[in-house]
Amino acid sequence: MKLEIAVLAGDGIGPEVTAQAIKSLEAIAHSFDHTFLFKEGLVGAIAIDKTGDALPQETLDLCAATDAVLFGAIGDPKYDNNPGSKVRPEQGLLKLRKELGLYANIRPVKAYPTLLEHSPLKRHIIEGTDIAIYRELTGGIYFGKKTLNDEGTVASDLCEYSKEEIERIAHLAFKEALKRKKKLTLVDKANVLETSRLWRKVVTELATAYPEVQLDFMFVDNAAMQLILNPKSFDVILTENMFGDILSDEASVIGGSIGLLASASIGDKFAMFEPIHGSYPQATGKGIANPIAAILSVAMLLRHFNLNEEAAVIEQGVEKALELHITTPDLNSHQPLSTQKVGDFIADYI
Amino acid sequence: MKLEIAVLAGDGIGPEVTAQAIKSLEAIAHSFDHTFLFKEGLVGAIAIDKTGDALPQETLDLCAATDAVLFGAIGDPKYDNNPGSKVRPEQGLLKLRKELGLYANIRPVKAYPTLLEHSPLKRHIIEGTDIAIYRELTGGIYFGKKTLNDEGTVASDLCEYSKEEIERIAHLAFKEALKRKKKLTLVDKANVLETSRLWRKVVTELATAYPEVQLDFMFVDNAAMQLILNPKSFDVILTENMFGDILSDEASVIGGSIGLLASASIGDKFAMFEPIHGSYPQATGKGIANPIAAILSVAMLLRHFNLNEEAAVIEQGVEKALELHITTPDLNSHQPLSTQKVGDFIADYI
Ligand SMILES: CC(C)[C@H](C(=O)O)[C@@H](O)C(=O)O
Ligand SMILES: CC(C)[C@H](C(=O)O)[C@@H](O)C(=O)O
Repeated sequence: MKLEIAVLAGDGIGPEVTAQAIKSLEAIAHSFDHTFLFKEGLVGAIAIDKTGDALPQETLDLCAATDAVLFGAIGDPKYDNNPGSKVRPEQGLLKLRKELGLYANIRPVKAYPTLLEHSPLKRHIIEGTDIAIYRELTGGIYFGKKTLNDEGTVASDLCEYSKEEIERIAHLAFKEALKRKKKLTLVDKANVLETSRLWRKVVTELATAYPEVQLDFMFVDNAAMQLILNPKSFDVILTENMFGDILSDEASVIGGSIGLLASASIGDKFAMFEPIHGSYPQATGKGIANPIAAILSVAMLLRHFNLNEEAAVIEQGVEKALELHITTPDLNSHQPLSTQKVGDFIADYI
Repeated sequence: MKLEIAVLAGDGIGPEVTAQAIKSLEAIAHSFDHTFLFKEGLVGAIAIDKTGDALPQETLDLCAATDAVLFGAIGDPKYDNNPGSKVRPEQGLLKLRKELGLYANIRPVKAYPTLLEHSPLKRHIIEGTDIAIYRELTGGIYFGKKTLNDEGTVASDLCEYSKEEIERIAHLAFKEALKRKKKLTLVDKANVLETSRLWRKVVTELATAYPEVQLDFMFVDNAAMQLILNPKSFDVILTENMFGDILSDEASVIGGSIGLLASASIGDKFAMFEPIHGSYPQATGKGIANPIAAILSVAMLLRHFNLNEEAAVIEQGVEKALELHITTPDLNSHQPLSTQKVGDFIADYI
């Protein structure tokens, strides 16, 4: 197979971990006789610095012209103190999601047997956890109308959802549930929000098309609790944009390190793959960033193109690295290895 | 001191746990020579059943005429399947908060030494945790305009905040920080929301009046993670309504049982005290509900009226009960005691 991949490495540790992910992809290309072409684009703080725009048109055109996007991380402390400033790195990411129509963000959360000790949660709580979070990514309060009055004393954000926006991601989540334990939990705040009541109604209607899937509902406050009390009780979680942002970061603690979690952002035409961690500016250039989330992101990319065997090889490489403690300082305080060494090991394994 | 207290016991286990809380208050009245008058009012599902209204005007008048409100819990499964129905128990609670102007919800989160084993989190993570969460309670997306188009296909909820709404609770949070470790963390999503940017601006301005307090900012997704990874790093958390709902329930896992967490809802004129747990309908009438959260709520009530010694006695009674394993099944699988027995023990201690 031949794939053109846009590489938006972004800021902070983004370039370092993305380089390791590319290394894995190149190893796959070599072993399985595929051709992967990588084309770099600017996004985030580095794009602002060079072009004044967090997502230059050129980058958008590049993404639209390639088969998939590999994303690193964005964000720089110099923009953090003033999140209200006109141009911010995050805007690049949000615009990219919107423009490419990446409406479904998929985050798998697993407790790796070799990492159970690293989680702040007790072993018996997390052992066996395997959750897929489906977060709506291009709607809700993220993209609704924002206002600030002239005096700067009253602000508002509108959360809006339409039936269509809910249906398209709900279909993906139901289909995923069919491949797994056949359980779908819709997380909402239907006792308070009108949009949540619409989610419940639309998803309930859709459920008749998936009679094998057991659908249940949970209020977001309770879900935030149950994710920690009883993570094993979840299979597929479906939720709106803001709740998904909070819950998926919360759920990352189960795995023992946010440096392990990959994500896919899928639309009808385009797909983007990225680690869920941020740009971690304090770690930039030190070789201590965990490349595994980025590497698992390319496994998700391969699976997206039905290269399942290839994806499995990468995942095995990761598991082997974890097993042998070939890991960065976040997972290994005794004999930590560098970002590059971990990347090399996994690429060699492939 | 003489206090008139409105008692809104509500649904499910509400009446059972409230009865134990009253028992503690009566013991305090007896030992310290105070007079507490209790006046019952209807709220929640039971109010809907009896009057058609989740918060009858009579109840509201009662609350407005008394010195404080003691609240149990609300919610009944028969209203759960249809959260969109016109009359719902939760509306009673939301209306009560709004009408009484209870804009600050205060939830202390502590890891009790005797309960460390009960938490899903590892001992070294939670030991020593002591957080006060200040959640804005009468604004934001809970009370903004809601719309649903005629076809029932597009819904919206407006999140709105004004400078005044932010300032009044921020002052309370800063003052609380002064009495504690002098650290205040504002949790928001300022990289996405206009309202969050207003929160940051207003709170930053206010901080100049509290130079001793160290103010920092954290995005809500990160906060959801840090609460589990490093709960000891927090002192006072200040946040808006929806984020506070999610984070405070999440934080409840630290203590080992949601049955321990009390809350105070404060306004300029009125104050209400309630356990943070819900009506737990499955447990109703079985005598298994943990009354400690309700009992600790009356300790918060007493402190509100500067009856600090009295509050401390109740808290000591609770700690004694926990130490001696005089606890309900949620905390005690070997020899659990009933709701009433736990209430009796604490009242006797007083
Ligand atoms: C950077 C930020 C805008 C973004 C979000 O909130 O979606 C991030 O937290 C994420 O989850 O990808
Ligand atoms: C019952 C519900 C409306 C309420 C809320 O969301 O505020 C509850 O979860 C709480 O936190 O007191």
